[in-house]
Amino acid sequence: MFFEGSEKKLEVIMTPESPSLRRFGRSFWDAMAGFAGARILSSIANENCDAYLLSESSLFVWDSRFLVLTCGNTRLVDAALQFIESVGTEAIAFLSYQRKNEYFSHLQSSSFEQDIGLLRRQLAGGAYRVGHLDAHHHYLFTSQGPFQAREDDCTSELLMYRIRGQVAQYLNAPGQTREGVRSVLALDELFAGYVIDDFLFEPLGYSINGIKGKSYFTLHITPQESSSYVSFETNIDLARYPHRVFARLLKILEPASWDVIGFNSAVNNSVVNGGDFPGHLCVGSCSIALDQGYNVAFSHYQQLCHEVLIPELL
Amino acid sequence: MFFEGSEKKLEVIMTPESPSLRRFGRSFWDAMAGFAGARILSSIANENCDAYLLSESSLFVWDSRFLVLTCGNTRLVDAALQFIESVGTEAIAFLSYQRKNEYFSHLQSSSFEQDIGLLRRQLAGGAYRVGHLDAHHHYLFTSQGPFQAREDDCTSELLMYRIRGQVAQYLNAPGQTREGVRSVLALDELFAGYVIDDFLFEPLGYSINGIKGKSYFTLHITPQESSSYVSFETNIDLARYPHRVFARLLKILEPASWDVIGFNSAVNNSVVNGGDFPGHLCVGSCSIALDQGYNVAFSHYQQLCHEVLIPELL
Repeated sequence: MFFEGSEKKLEVIMTPESPSLRRFGRSFWDAMAGFAGARILSSIANENCDAYLLSESSLFVWDSRFLVLTCGNTRLVDAALQFIESVGTEAIAFLSYQRKNEYFSHLQSSSFEQDIGLLRRQLAGGAYRVGHLDAHHHYLFTSQGPFQAREDDCTSELLMYRIRGQVAQYLNAPGQTREGVRSVLALDELFAGYVIDDFLFEPLGYSINGIKGKSYFTLHITPQESSSYVSFETNIDLARYPHRVFARLLKILEPASWDVIGFNSAVNNSVVNGGDFPGHLCVGSCSIALDQGYNVAFSHYQQLCHEVLIPELL
Repeated sequence: MFFEGSEKKLEVIMTPESPSLRRFGRSFWDAMAGFAGARILSSIANENCDAYLLSESSLFVWDSRFLVLTCGNTRLVDAALQFIESVGTEAIAFLSYQRKNEYFSHLQSSSFEQDIGLLRRQLAGGAYRVGHLDAHHHYLFTSQGPFQAREDDCTSELLMYRIRGQVAQYLNAPGQTREGVRSVLALDELFAGYVIDDFLFEPLGYSINGIKGKSYFTLHITPQESSSYVSFETNIDLARYPHRVFARLLKILEPASWDVIGFNSAVNNSVVNGGDFPGHLCVGSCSIALDQGYNVAFSHYQQLCHEVLIPELL
């Protein structure tokens, strides 16, 4: 049974005049998750943020922005279209829509090209693919407009493909507990002081949201062998954080390959972090300066080792 | 304009009692090409083999076997089904059907899994995928049965992705000639004495078939930048050939990555050839011993260098 762990991601920033998104209430966000084909499982909140765990990934709502990640065969573009229709384009300062490297792109219900065809009927915007189609690649759509991001408006994403080793075995075996998963991943240590909400899926899979002030982190595990995937994302400025979060996760999860995506994030800088990464070949990397003040960086890393491939019977 | 250079491949070996396939005549093979969605452009022949250049790749017909490669969005499985129906399963000693790593698998009219679903209605057989879905991979279906391949029944395939350098520029520019392509690829030197048939496509693309005795080689070029692809295949025993064909082609075409597939071929052996290859990481490799006496080897190589990725506007 294959499950596409790779996420689509939608982030929307509202104009200053717009009402608080948090006041839209639970039923609004229930409906939004539903348009994408997901549902809200549980939630946590603090003074700044409502964080929802979804049946397929996560939703974070602040007063003036929200972020939603959905994996599997969800149709996040439909939720984006519904949101745009319900608030009107003039209320949206900035919208970005991403699709990450998928294992089985031909099983998805739409392609990125089809998705942006729909989005562009409502919002003008630029779209890119970085990375080659026969290697890891990443799709990004960003809306046009006068919005300017603050320099400290940063996001760092670490996408890990085909995890290996003892922790991977634990994550792929019965009898896991949420405490056990947090412990093997050192999450309580790396994110001390965060309010967390986590969930173990049947038969396999784990999701966690954590919030502290305006900061969030979210991690999702699809541990199934041969197409395992773990994604981590945060708005913490990791270059100034006391823990080397990416290096720690890579050491623990031993992915065969991984991608790093940063928005105004120095985490992709090899001086800052590459030296801590496991032995690797950085197959390709790219940096795009968006008009709206985001510097978007993408890098695809491959562990420097040969793998004896196991034929998969079909 | 994207064109999927990556090929599907069908090889059929007839039982000794079956009539000569060459006597089926041109109209039969015209129809076969048509079932796949291709057409015959030209042909050459010698005492052993009729070799056809197709609008999408190549067809080689010997008395007791044939081999057809089709690229683009052809439906080679339909030709396979028609062939099986026209000769009957009892006339077929061995059938293999391959699909190579595709750039845009979601644009293909069927998946390998769908193809083998159709094939298995007519012929029992085993099927494998080797290689991970987020890296280069290769699909193979082989029929069951008492057939045993001779040890010298060997095939060597070299699949080159994203060619670079001066020759890549020449192949991607106007004003090419067939002689020019043969010259930059050193084909007349590497395959001296072969009867050849080559073709330049509009706006871009090149195919060549060569035959000598029972030996063949075929090479196909889809030079379009960012998804360029060159495939080479032969039944020459390259380990005993005076030229190091794979190493030469790799040096000339400088692909960012390449795959080697061998059937009873030592060409994948690093002692024989790896030392001649450009600096690389062999990301993964695999060897499968088929009941019918074929040792099938697959290796995925990545050049050992970092690439500054250019965002592709969508």
